[in-house]
Amino acid sequence: MIANTGLRNTGASARIQVVIAVLCFASLAPRAFGQQADSDPLPSWNDGTTKKAILEFVHVATQKDGPKYVPPEQRIATFDLDGTLWVEHPMYTQVVYCLDRVKAVVRHRPHLKDLAPFKTVLSGNHEAIAKLAWNDIDKIVEAAISGMTVEAFRAEVSQWLATARHPRFKRPYTDLAYQPMIEVLHYLRANGFKTYIVTGSGQDFVRVFAEKVYGIPPEQVVGSAGETKYGYGKSGEPLLFKEPKLLLNDNNAGKPEGIHLVIGRRPCAACGNSSGDRQMLEYTGAGDRARMMMLVLHDDATREYAYGPADGLPKSRVGTFPQALYDEAQQKGWHVIHMKTDWKRVFAFEK
Amino acid sequence: MIANTGLRNTGASARIQVVIAVLCFASLAPRAFGQQADSDPLPSWNDGTTKKAILEFVHVATQKDGPKYVPPEQRIATFDLDGTLWVEHPMYTQVVYCLDRVKAVVRHRPHLKDLAPFKTVLSGNHEAIAKLAWNDIDKIVEAAISGMTVEAFRAEVSQWLATARHPRFKRPYTDLAYQPMIEVLHYLRANGFKTYIVTGSGQDFVRVFAEKVYGIPPEQVVGSAGETKYGYGKSGEPLLFKEPKLLLNDNNAGKPEGIHLVIGRRPCAACGNSSGDRQMLEYTGAGDRARMMMLVLHDDATREYAYGPADGLPKSRVGTFPQALYDEAQQKGWHVIHMKTDWKRVFAFEK
Repeated sequence: MIANTGLRNTGASARIQVVIAVLCFASLAPRAFGQQADSDPLPSWNDGTTKKAILEFVHVATQKDGPKYVPPEQRIATFDLDGTLWVEHPMYTQVVYCLDRVKAVVRHRPHLKDLAPFKTVLSGNHEAIAKLAWNDIDKIVEAAISGMTVEAFRAEVSQWLATARHPRFKRPYTDLAYQPMIEVLHYLRANGFKTYIVTGSGQDFVRVFAEKVYGIPPEQVVGSAGETKYGYGKSGEPLLFKEPKLLLNDNNAGKPEGIHLVIGRRPCAACGNSSGDRQMLEYTGAGDRARMMMLVLHDDATREYAYGPADGLPKSRVGTFPQALYDEAQQKGWHVIHMKTDWKRVFAFEK
Repeated sequence: MIANTGLRNTGASARIQVVIAVLCFASLAPRAFGQQADSDPLPSWNDGTTKKAILEFVHVATQKDGPKYVPPEQRIATFDLDGTLWVEHPMYTQVVYCLDRVKAVVRHRPHLKDLAPFKTVLSGNHEAIAKLAWNDIDKIVEAAISGMTVEAFRAEVSQWLATARHPRFKRPYTDLAYQPMIEVLHYLRANGFKTYIVTGSGQDFVRVFAEKVYGIPPEQVVGSAGETKYGYGKSGEPLLFKEPKLLLNDNNAGKPEGIHLVIGRRPCAACGNSSGDRQMLEYTGAGDRARMMMLVLHDDATREYAYGPADGLPKSRVGTFPQALYDEAQQKGWHVIHMKTDWKRVFAFEK
């Protein structure tokens, strides 16, 4: 406790004074002392302008008599997932899942196995797979995440997450959640914020692990969503089938649109890492009272990856963060999180 | 306090004993006494099988060691709106709003004023208006709730709700919320349930008053929803425009589909009043652990209305409750709330 009060280096006489002071105050204000002892809610963040900005935002938003006070019911914070809350390289996790599912897909629909792009995926030719166009990937995703009940899908994703490993980190994908961001989510919730994931990835896919990994329940996951169709199973039991028809494309302008559909309020805090998050940040920034908009910049090739305006991978297939977005952030006062310098550690498994 | 403990009619001697008992126990167990004093969470309900079933459901669902315990995160309760939480006669409130808005609609889009069904509405011919087909009403609704920003829509609805009066009760529509159902919502929330409105009416329309009237925030309103389109205002400010394109028809099978889209969990309690709620109740009933499915039966022409299998209005344009639904409820153990006998009072304004 004393170490955290900044009094470690005082002499013996001062220490006695401190002990007396503690004894005197402890009975009067034990709670205040307790708070001071656990005072850093963001231990995985280095001290710096970004950490300071987060602390300052929460302070201003929750200061009841302050000019920028945000009433509890309006404390909505929205976070992109891929590249913002976990690793998105070398490919969005949901896409990796869908590529892995192609074998199972063609077992149920054999006519697909000789058709592009399924044939390419089944060939195992990594170079050809890496060159698939986005509309081919969309076809694969659509086939892999439809045609079953929502329960069957949930079970398949759970099983995959338990066994699949990231090619570089050799760990389950869910281990690759960014510890500093988990701390931000906790810190916001501890201050009355409702935290949401707002992702271009599939809503049902993300709901499988969001509660366990981020403490975000299914009803607070907004994502790209296909239609479901209500029907009945063999024993007449009611079921929801996942249909191959896109209902909500939760990217770019689709993010504020999805936020309106599912949440119905404008967020006061939003965080992303790419052009797909631009409109969400812009929409958030246009509200009144306290606001916080942030973008994660991947500039740490050693601990994670470096792409976007930082350096490396200019033709990255994920997380497009053009110079124009960086400039817009500077101009509008959106905070850029520099992974390399802002984060003391990236993952929970780091020492 | 004493009145509620059932001791009002005791004699003077017994009263003294009660006072002594209160004085003795007050210091030992003030909290238990407080609970006992306010022990009826459903004061607007008559004692009977329905009230007992609600109390029993909450007891079973929250009994931690019980076989049907529902963990807090799974305590999702969904309620239809029209005819379940407020009056739907003689017409759904949103439709009344849209008919009232036709004059404003044709001011902005003058070409509509000579076209059916707008011409009929503008004629003021009540008989002709009452005969409009559902697809005509859909056209009116679509025109009245699109073509403006979500903020402008919210302001228009607020203003209308403040001034419009129900033709029979001569009161604001929001006064016509059923007090017994408000008590059920409160009681469920006090026991860790998240309460949702799941309505065929427009999501954005209902969000305007749901928090104030029912304590249900915008993000817990699932309703029929049109698309919104992200764009910019004259000063470049980001805006969401309401488009005339239906995204979610939250009726019948659309209710469990909408629940999956917005909530992503199966409810353990659901309440409706018509065929449009059948699938929601069926879907809810197919889950495990404690379940409660209820249907409000309008059998009270004196205090409210009588329609459905009860009597009266067989060709009612709202709240279709056919005999087959009544029979299904009996067969499946869904509780039928008999407004006439189950409710001590219907509205908060009753004495």
